Amino acid sequence: MRNSSRGMVDPFIVMDVMEAARRAEAAGRHIIHMEVGQPGTAAPKGARRAAATALEQDALGYTVALGLPALRARIAQLYGEWYGVDLDPNRVIVTSGSSSAFLLAFTALFEAGDRVAIGAPGYPSYRQILKALSLEPVLIEARPENRLQPVADDLKGLNAKGLMVASPANPTGTMLDRSAMSSLIDAAHGAGASFISDEIYHGIEYEAKAVTALELTDDAYVINSFSKYFSMTGYRVGWMVVPEDHVRIIERLAQNMFICAPHISQVTALAAMDCHEELQSNMAVYTENRKLMLEELPKAGLDQFAPPDGGFYVYADVSAFTNDSRAFAAEILEKAGVAVTPGLDFDEKRGHQTLRLSYARSTADIKEGLSRLNAFMAERGST
Amino acid sequence: MRNSSRGMVDPFIVMDVMEAARRAEAAGRHIIHMEVGQPGTAAPKGARRAAATALEQDALGYTVALGLPALRARIAQLYGEWYGVDLDPNRVIVTSGSSSAFLLAFTALFEAGDRVAIGAPGYPSYRQILKALSLEPVLIEARPENRLQPVADDLKGLNAKGLMVASPANPTGTMLDRSAMSSLIDAAHGAGASFISDEIYHGIEYEAKAVTALELTDDAYVINSFSKYFSMTGYRVGWMVVPEDHVRIIERLAQNMFICAPHISQVTALAAMDCHEELQSNMAVYTENRKLMLEELPKAGLDQFAPPDGGFYVYADVSAFTNDSRAFAAEILEKAGVAVTPGLDFDEKRGHQTLRLSYARSTADIKEGLSRLNAFMAERGST
Repeated sequence: MRNSSRGMVDPFIVMDVMEAARRAEAAGRHIIHMEVGQPGTAAPKGARRAAATALEQDALGYTVALGLPALRARIAQLYGEWYGVDLDPNRVIVTSGSSSAFLLAFTALFEAGDRVAIGAPGYPSYRQILKALSLEPVLIEARPENRLQPVADDLKGLNAKGLMVASPANPTGTMLDRSAMSSLIDAAHGAGASFISDEIYHGIEYEAKAVTALELTDDAYVINSFSKYFSMTGYRVGWMVVPEDHVRIIERLAQNMFICAPHISQVTALAAMDCHEELQSNMAVYTENRKLMLEELPKAGLDQFAPPDGGFYVYADVSAFTNDSRAFAAEILEKAGVAVTPGLDFDEKRGHQTLRLSYARSTADIKEGLSRLNAFMAERGST
Repeated sequence: MRNSSRGMVDPFIVMDVMEAARRAEAAGRHIIHMEVGQPGTAAPKGARRAAATALEQDALGYTVALGLPALRARIAQLYGEWYGVDLDPNRVIVTSGSSSAFLLAFTALFEAGDRVAIGAPGYPSYRQILKALSLEPVLIEARPENRLQPVADDLKGLNAKGLMVASPANPTGTMLDRSAMSSLIDAAHGAGASFISDEIYHGIEYEAKAVTALELTDDAYVINSFSKYFSMTGYRVGWMVVPEDHVRIIERLAQNMFICAPHISQVTALAAMDCHEELQSNMAVYTENRKLMLEELPKAGLDQFAPPDGGFYVYADVSAFTNDSRAFAAEILEKAGVAVTPGLDFDEKRGHQTLRLSYARSTADIKEGLSRLNAFMAERGST
């Protein structure tokens, strides 16, 4: 049987790292996981309790396509709590993780063949989903002086029908402040491009609050998720806020493409939103871990990175040590017993000189990982 | 903000029925739901117990994209149990319901603009998902003498790159037997079209066992779900079996488009597969309900339908009573207090003369619904 060309997306390089780490563990080695893209914590206890109750008391059939009304209302309320934004719950769409939000947004907004601009480095699935939908990802090579975020001028001459940004970004953790976000929105609208804001790391932020595009405009698609701050990756539940006149379009697409987000995950998410204490104790761990990263990585010679504003990654320029981040990551796994992600997944052109290091796991793990990296770099003569 | 043309899919007409039913209930009326497309039962008890345990003991993060290995193995085993087919677990892909299986299959197999043949009447989301992916649905008007299933000759001259069939079908419940399925597979392959078999109602079958395409060929995509027989609609978990050399392609697409199916739903599904007793008692209810439908509907003058081989729907030709199934369904809801689905969702051309009646709910509900339909048709002077 024939395959389509759009089905031929690139493999994730991090998967090779994870497989190598798995093999090393199967062979009895102890590996520190700084390659992971998810919290090590479970969903908050109160949320899991709500899920257990629903399992007993509810048939958990399909929900309406846009999601449980109570969850949509609670998400709208969050925009008041976090940003002081008064949001109509009718504009909130519950999705099967941000993954299905991307699929819905790209389908609703773009025709086959349209060009959509995204920053590099960036989350690799952006460009793969675009390709799978017969869209053309247009990569903006973000510059270190802009903390690896796109700026308004980058959009010139791209002839893009859409611009998607992420703040805090994966892999860098850098954010767009109010003025940076605002000028990107203006540039996109000026160029006739739809503006999509990926805000899935909101809530995990350190020195300043992240800015949502909804503080600045209603004419944007905003995508968020319960995966990161709410610690619910495997539940596959997220949300999207769209302009009022797009709700019916998304509703019909969602009815047909997804039917609904997992019912039990929606119940869990609703309860998670009131588990402040446990979520804040997760945040305290990320904050401590980030502090350790900022202190210890430079001692290992890894000092070429922008301190992350949010999320749980450091994206380091390792051009002083290698021109082959894949081999370098393999060497670190082999010699230091630390799994890290080569930058090639995030930036095809320049990622051979970068690594992403995650600090999403426990502080004990991060301490041990940093200590191993220090020893490895010293041994290698790189510090 | 602009919408794409491919995002403009048709509304579900059944949603209007459901909304009208909801309003009637809110106004204090008692409505019998024969419009629903899902079991009224919860997931089996043993399955819900496994989910509750997982909530306590497991962080439930992402699974690997193809699904929990134990679940893939158990699904492969099912092919031995149900059909005597020896299936390699590596060919099994766990999906977020059959919905995401359709998205994966269509993306992996077809280029934008390709024509894909499907039968009418049929599940409306087939054509909407195809449109959303910039593919062209080609409707085969299935004939009553073929029990509203496509036949090999229908494929001639269509220039289709794919053929998707459903057995048992929604809305008719009719099945393709071994020889019908075999000649469709041959016709598709002869025409250079990929063959996709939707088998999501397997397990809910009455006088003969349903035939899987995998009994006849390995060169097909087979899509199934835990929604119907396993009574887990809202969990959004299903599966797909693909040719061996397509597994890597689907894996990469799934990593990017979905990351993974909901973890807790995968755990629930695995346990559900061993809850034979409860699943068989659900089946006993469907069997009794079907018997009542076959006995009572003709007494109400509704005798133009093929007895369903599987699933839980009767698809009746009501051309003797109306040329406007939508108005007829509204009249039935209004006067009889029974919600039914007009055929227009399933067959744009001919559905103005058909209704789908579901018998997925309790036997008490079906009895009451049939009695109301009888009284209504007598009152109307239609019997």
